[in-house]
Amino acid sequence: MTLKTNVLEQCENAKEASLQIAGLTNDDKNFVLYELAEDILMNKNRILKANALDVSQNKGKISDVLLKRLKVDESKIKEMAEMVKSVANLEDPVNKVIAKTQLDKGLLLKKITVPIGVICCIFESRPEVVVQISALAIKSGNAVLLKGGSEALNTNKVLVEIIRESIKDNKGMPEDAVLLLETREAVKEVLKMDEFIDLIIPRGSNKFVKFIQDNTKIPVMGHAEGICHVYVDKDADVSKAAAIAFDAKCQYPAVCNAMETLLVNERISDKFLPLIVQKYLENNVEVRLDKKAFNTIKSNNELSSLIKNKNLKKLIKKAVEKDWKTEYTDLIISIKIVKDVVEAIDHINKYGSGHTDAIVTENKAAAERFMSFVDSASVMWNASTRFADGFRYGLGAEVGISTNKIHARGPVGLEGLVIYKYVLIGSGHIVDEYVRGKKNFLHDILPK
Amino acid sequence: MTLKTNVLEQCENAKEASLQIAGLTNDDKNFVLYELAEDILMNKNRILKANALDVSQNKGKISDVLLKRLKVDESKIKEMAEMVKSVANLEDPVNKVIAKTQLDKGLLLKKITVPIGVICCIFESRPEVVVQISALAIKSGNAVLLKGGSEALNTNKVLVEIIRESIKDNKGMPEDAVLLLETREAVKEVLKMDEFIDLIIPRGSNKFVKFIQDNTKIPVMGHAEGICHVYVDKDADVSKAAAIAFDAKCQYPAVCNAMETLLVNERISDKFLPLIVQKYLENNVEVRLDKKAFNTIKSNNELSSLIKNKNLKKLIKKAVEKDWKTEYTDLIISIKIVKDVVEAIDHINKYGSGHTDAIVTENKAAAERFMSFVDSASVMWNASTRFADGFRYGLGAEVGISTNKIHARGPVGLEGLVIYKYVLIGSGHIVDEYVRGKKNFLHDILPK
Repeated sequence: MTLKTNVLEQCENAKEASLQIAGLTNDDKNFVLYELAEDILMNKNRILKANALDVSQNKGKISDVLLKRLKVDESKIKEMAEMVKSVANLEDPVNKVIAKTQLDKGLLLKKITVPIGVICCIFESRPEVVVQISALAIKSGNAVLLKGGSEALNTNKVLVEIIRESIKDNKGMPEDAVLLLETREAVKEVLKMDEFIDLIIPRGSNKFVKFIQDNTKIPVMGHAEGICHVYVDKDADVSKAAAIAFDAKCQYPAVCNAMETLLVNERISDKFLPLIVQKYLENNVEVRLDKKAFNTIKSNNELSSLIKNKNLKKLIKKAVEKDWKTEYTDLIISIKIVKDVVEAIDHINKYGSGHTDAIVTENKAAAERFMSFVDSASVMWNASTRFADGFRYGLGAEVGISTNKIHARGPVGLEGLVIYKYVLIGSGHIVDEYVRGKKNFLHDILPK
Repeated sequence: MTLKTNVLEQCENAKEASLQIAGLTNDDKNFVLYELAEDILMNKNRILKANALDVSQNKGKISDVLLKRLKVDESKIKEMAEMVKSVANLEDPVNKVIAKTQLDKGLLLKKITVPIGVICCIFESRPEVVVQISALAIKSGNAVLLKGGSEALNTNKVLVEIIRESIKDNKGMPEDAVLLLETREAVKEVLKMDEFIDLIIPRGSNKFVKFIQDNTKIPVMGHAEGICHVYVDKDADVSKAAAIAFDAKCQYPAVCNAMETLLVNERISDKFLPLIVQKYLENNVEVRLDKKAFNTIKSNNELSSLIKNKNLKKLIKKAVEKDWKTEYTDLIISIKIVKDVVEAIDHINKYGSGHTDAIVTENKAAAERFMSFVDSASVMWNASTRFADGFRYGLGAEVGISTNKIHARGPVGLEGLVIYKYVLIGSGHIVDEYVRGKKNFLHDILPK
């Protein structure tokens, strides 16, 4: 069997499974998830054995950080089982009535949430993602095609086997609701399967996500870059601004909602810039300054002694055009002085990635202008960009963070895995009577 | 200036305009729309003159039907102005609070509807669509790139000129909120402009929509085909079934929500088939029957005399595999006998286009099974598929009908032109305090 046939077959099976799982009740899906949680614990040794193989095969080949993420131990298996149960406990995203209209006497229209169909999730490294995504797919009534990192293949295979054995024929659940793609070539094939796959969710590096986006007609939910900004307005409270600008950059610089560029109003820069730059330098953050900011720092007396320290001096650089478009995901920040909130908004809309941007100000009008005109998934007033996250937003589960302009934007919970259908219930109603004027529509909007 | 530069420039301008219009209030947008309605009436002669040119240039070149659709007269101009006012009177789709969560004391998260950005609408023929789509775009705060049929170019150009003159600098509205693409080549260029365009809405033939879908990475909202089904269950009320099957095929066969295939349960086919086939034949509908249906009709005594009529006999044909995949948009219907509701569901999910499908039955369990497992934008019980329409669903305005599985599905109103952003308002909140456990999230869901 050639690879193409194999992937095609998997896609066909996933499509068929999606039509079955879509009709299951929340109780049935929860029952299956609770049993799955048990089965994960019961198959502990199988998982550990497969994972030991992955770890030994990759030792020395991948970084220690990646090796640590790859490793599964007993406590991680327990966490996986707990996570499956916590997904079961989430509110049912399916079968919610979004709208209800009495079109006419005896003719009722309902708009109801339903699963999307077949989701393909492509991710790197961590094997627990297999379990997490499978649980979210089952809960939302979708079939899922999974592709994990090749270094975790043995672990992923065993996890998917356990999931498929566990769900098979349980409460009418088809085993093909969860399928694993095993090779890199399979990913290339899958990108062409727009007939079967309704949504692709890639999780990984910018380059990886961009590759997926550029090579498929299937809708892709996610974000390639996270170029987030904090703008410190002329009316900012300087201590709030310093705390937020520090948190947004330094609390965890490797993630997409960390700030990459700090914009400072020219009327507060003399006061604020030396303060925050000192804080950054003391914490080993490289600062890349535009011309005005560079001059402000150079002419500042309090900083001058600090800058004499050679190690710190090395951390001060001049920003170039490329810096405004760069996601460092590291202890590096670009800083630009702007005339006003309008210039800040323009800069963000031009260079940003539409992910998350914050203003620090005590001026309500400036804040409202910023939040209204900055075209990003999350806009914030006096809060750190690092809050843009499914857990922190209270979504229960995070499917990913999207910078798309349709369907789902920002941190996406289970609601990103559903769409709706219209259900119309009549008693023999035909359109001809309305066209001829024998009957008229009521269009009464009813409570949901 | 080469075409590419020109289209690129238009896209850049549309993008910039979209950022401006997104921040306007509903009152301001309505004010502009009311003035636009006035301006359309005041420029009556300009429109009539341009349209007369289009009509004279196309006389003899296009069909009478198309020529009639192309022609604009005084009453159509009045209708356009009225339509603009009716769009102004719709509920504001923007700035709706969809969700509100108190993340912590003083830290409030709101999920608010916002415009998508830049929409590109490509349609054929009727010039009034220019005005309709422009009004909907303005109301929803989006910038729009329009491409109409080449036969209406003079009319479309004048209409877009009038709209741009009318909205320019009115309440802060940028004239580039509405732009016209004039050539077929411009469409090809525009399909590559995924950096600037957020959504394409094509309206036209299946082939045309399919071409757009297959040649762009930009999300496309719409439907290529409308292969709709009516399934007559064993427990159907035969008179309801006949009325619905007749309405769904014959009330207006040229549209996407008309039925193409009738599925009949084998336990009711002896009773129902002769009845509906007779009705079809009497109304000049060609029936393409599967083997079982063909035999049922041939062996029916009451129909035999009717079928002796040569003209009617010509209307009876045997269905082939291709018929189940064909959208006739004409007085032709394919008919298949199925064993039960499960076979009906399988047939629809295999051959249908996910547009609109109906079951006729008095059996609630069968109806619920059908509506749950048929994966279509609209599913109906004892009602004609012809109801699947924005006006009949009470949506106020119809942007199009979508068979997409993400963002918007079925008849799409103004809500299909908006997405949401998250707005987070704090007073200096930083993530570090939550990560260290100094503060804990409340996640209180508040009323909207």
